[in-house]
Amino acid sequence: MSNATIQTLKTMLAYLDDAKKYQSLRDVLQSLPAPDLAPVFEDLPPEKRPVLFRLCPKDQAAALFAELTPQTQQSLIEELSDRELAAVVAELCADDAADLVEEMPAGVVRRILAQADPRTRQTINELLKYPQDSAGGAMTPEFMDLRPGWTVRRALAELRAHGFDKETINTCYVTAPDRTLLGEVSLRALVLARDEGCPVQALMQPDPVRVGTAADREEVSRLFEKYGLLAIPVVDTENRLVGIVTVDDAMTILQDEVSEDIDKMNAVAPTDKPYFRRSMWELYRSRAPWLLFLMLSATFSSLVIRGYEDALAAVTALTAYIPMLTDTGGNAGSQSTSTIIRGLAVGEIAPRDLGRILWREGRVALLCGATLAVCNFAKVVWLDGVAAPVALVISLTLVCTVLLSQLIGGVLPVLARRVGIDPAVMASPIITTIVDTTTLLIYFNFARLLLHLA
Amino acid sequence: MSNATIQTLKTMLAYLDDAKKYQSLRDVLQSLPAPDLAPVFEDLPPEKRPVLFRLCPKDQAAALFAELTPQTQQSLIEELSDRELAAVVAELCADDAADLVEEMPAGVVRRILAQADPRTRQTINELLKYPQDSAGGAMTPEFMDLRPGWTVRRALAELRAHGFDKETINTCYVTAPDRTLLGEVSLRALVLARDEGCPVQALMQPDPVRVGTAADREEVSRLFEKYGLLAIPVVDTENRLVGIVTVDDAMTILQDEVSEDIDKMNAVAPTDKPYFRRSMWELYRSRAPWLLFLMLSATFSSLVIRGYEDALAAVTALTAYIPMLTDTGGNAGSQSTSTIIRGLAVGEIAPRDLGRILWREGRVALLCGATLAVCNFAKVVWLDGVAAPVALVISLTLVCTVLLSQLIGGVLPVLARRVGIDPAVMASPIITTIVDTTTLLIYFNFARLLLHLA
Repeated sequence: MSNATIQTLKTMLAYLDDAKKYQSLRDVLQSLPAPDLAPVFEDLPPEKRPVLFRLCPKDQAAALFAELTPQTQQSLIEELSDRELAAVVAELCADDAADLVEEMPAGVVRRILAQADPRTRQTINELLKYPQDSAGGAMTPEFMDLRPGWTVRRALAELRAHGFDKETINTCYVTAPDRTLLGEVSLRALVLARDEGCPVQALMQPDPVRVGTAADREEVSRLFEKYGLLAIPVVDTENRLVGIVTVDDAMTILQDEVSEDIDKMNAVAPTDKPYFRRSMWELYRSRAPWLLFLMLSATFSSLVIRGYEDALAAVTALTAYIPMLTDTGGNAGSQSTSTIIRGLAVGEIAPRDLGRILWREGRVALLCGATLAVCNFAKVVWLDGVAAPVALVISLTLVCTVLLSQLIGGVLPVLARRVGIDPAVMASPIITTIVDTTTLLIYFNFARLLLHLA
Repeated sequence: MSNATIQTLKTMLAYLDDAKKYQSLRDVLQSLPAPDLAPVFEDLPPEKRPVLFRLCPKDQAAALFAELTPQTQQSLIEELSDRELAAVVAELCADDAADLVEEMPAGVVRRILAQADPRTRQTINELLKYPQDSAGGAMTPEFMDLRPGWTVRRALAELRAHGFDKETINTCYVTAPDRTLLGEVSLRALVLARDEGCPVQALMQPDPVRVGTAADREEVSRLFEKYGLLAIPVVDTENRLVGIVTVDDAMTILQDEVSEDIDKMNAVAPTDKPYFRRSMWELYRSRAPWLLFLMLSATFSSLVIRGYEDALAAVTALTAYIPMLTDTGGNAGSQSTSTIIRGLAVGEIAPRDLGRILWREGRVALLCGATLAVCNFAKVVWLDGVAAPVALVISLTLVCTVLLSQLIGGVLPVLARRVGIDPAVMASPIITTIVDTTTLLIYFNFARLLLHLA
């Protein structure tokens, strides 16, 4: 939704509120999908929010609440009475309630848990045991389970009786009485079954794709994409079904993880806040430390240049090509590093492929380097009017720097993954800094050797 | 699936085939999900593929076929008899069949269309009218539509009669006899309805999220994430329902678009092939032209340095900080440009926000620049032993280059979107090249001014 639309809706809500047209206000609030209403609500002056929130019907209020930022949630909770808070918590999905508890300060958490009914409280506490970025942290325990011996008729009757408060019933799970996961059956299969007396067992798909509670949530979201699933069952170490992750959450996880990777790849400390919601201070903190670290790392390239001041003084033309050489090294490195980082992220590349990566990257880099060297030689000699031996130094450096950059760019993300560091930080900025120094060393040594400098 | 697993399965299939254990082979082929079987199949020697393909049960063969790369599909088609080809085409989903026709050379397309039954042929031709990256190109016409006046009982009966060959029935569409989209109703709502005599109309959600056939497929996949949908109806200009896009396709689109953006952001020509499936030549072609273009663009920085050779000769220490300054400019630029590109991609930022972006980026850049300048001054004077006036030149250049880089990095992607260029190409490599020249100009002019050089 564009900012213009947000502004229009904000003006409309403010007008209706000022004119005390509460029935129309309620209708408008009800008519907007919660994901559209949330940004408008966030933009309202804080003192207006509780009034409008109270006007929302119960289910819309819970849906809206789940879409708000933690800050807005907290300030809203502080305005709500205990009874109002209890109503919101009762309507929230279990996973949203657990996320809320995770984000709030201790005092607010105590109030929320005090207002939750005992079963909800227990569910929230169960979910909080799992790390936020695990399948356990992303799952909801509100799934529909069936017994293998039930007939289709019985299963549909159970669905009508207990299906209402489940996150999804499009996929149902077949479990033993001890909650061991036996298989899954789609609502589609139950509805399309020709014989209502047929046992669920006969329709179920045994041995479905499943994940453990400790599985990384990014890997879980990748399984959705690979197999085209709508939900994935989450099991404990004894293969007992404890929850499900649904495709809508998987999609959000995928988007968040990609944003995080892109941030890391560009030397920005990742945050999950939208751009315009971040404060000046947050933007500063996400950028300045990396810039500072990279600036100080550039000390090495300064040292190299200072060590070869004589060579530069003897052949002044050499200085002019320093930015071109270091940039080309950085560009070549970021080409291979970004390809390998993405390959690791989508699961096309495994850490054990290191040898194959080196072999491919090495050959491609030589081809690229040779192409650049030939074009550069022609350009430097004919257009820039530089002496052929100097042009040769530059071109030979190009071949070496492209080869080195693409090898380093191909290897570092894989090594990072092997030692448990996020490969995404081994991207362009770090590669550029590493490659700069080596490029300059190669450059000056070729110059000394071929131009017979002291 | 790791390469080790692929190797193990390949060995197993080859063994069973050589030992002529066809029944076991059939069981093994049937037992693997198609997304797992496909990479194994791709790795087999081409002459083995038709034998194994023929052993797959019909539905598994079609599922496997849809997962293969176009090259493998083509070589397989050339081995299949007309009857076998007809069986595969009949089992393929309409959107997969259309994708296949789009990828194959003309001769193969004629054979495919000749083998398709008339209705399939018509459907394929309809789908081919839409651009591949539009909602029309991504949709399937195999949706379930209901009439508003039908009772739940009638709707469920229709589902049992016609639901089998639909892509999904979890969401059904309520249409008028002229196919105008009136609303949608979930299978869940139909199954959970307390009264089987209730009309579909009463359960349907009117005015659902929908897209036109020309909508960008990336925007469509964003709607899935925003509203947590399982399917989105696609309508023509007269609001008649012509197809649906399902969430599994949306997830694949999302992943493909992200990979494409990351490629573009790192000066790689995008391809949708997995890393190890690309030939040496394809890798070369995706990298060399960009490297060459960026190398030649670096001519400007060379020109600037040559223009200020006197200044560099007078104060040799200046040369040592060139890589640090250009790198910092590049890093600062890529921080803001990547944030803005991602914001545009997920819809947090609209092109009309340009003014707000400039205001934020400008202030953050001044803060970052000032921090770097202070640290740099201290480091250069005390650690490197450089004279204070030279250190001042470097620090002032830092402030200006960070400011300029983050402003350019913030503005270029937005301007690119406005004139219809993909913002993702306005990323680190281009920004670095642009910023290099301006950084050097600022640097040398500060040097002339403050160090009183000619």
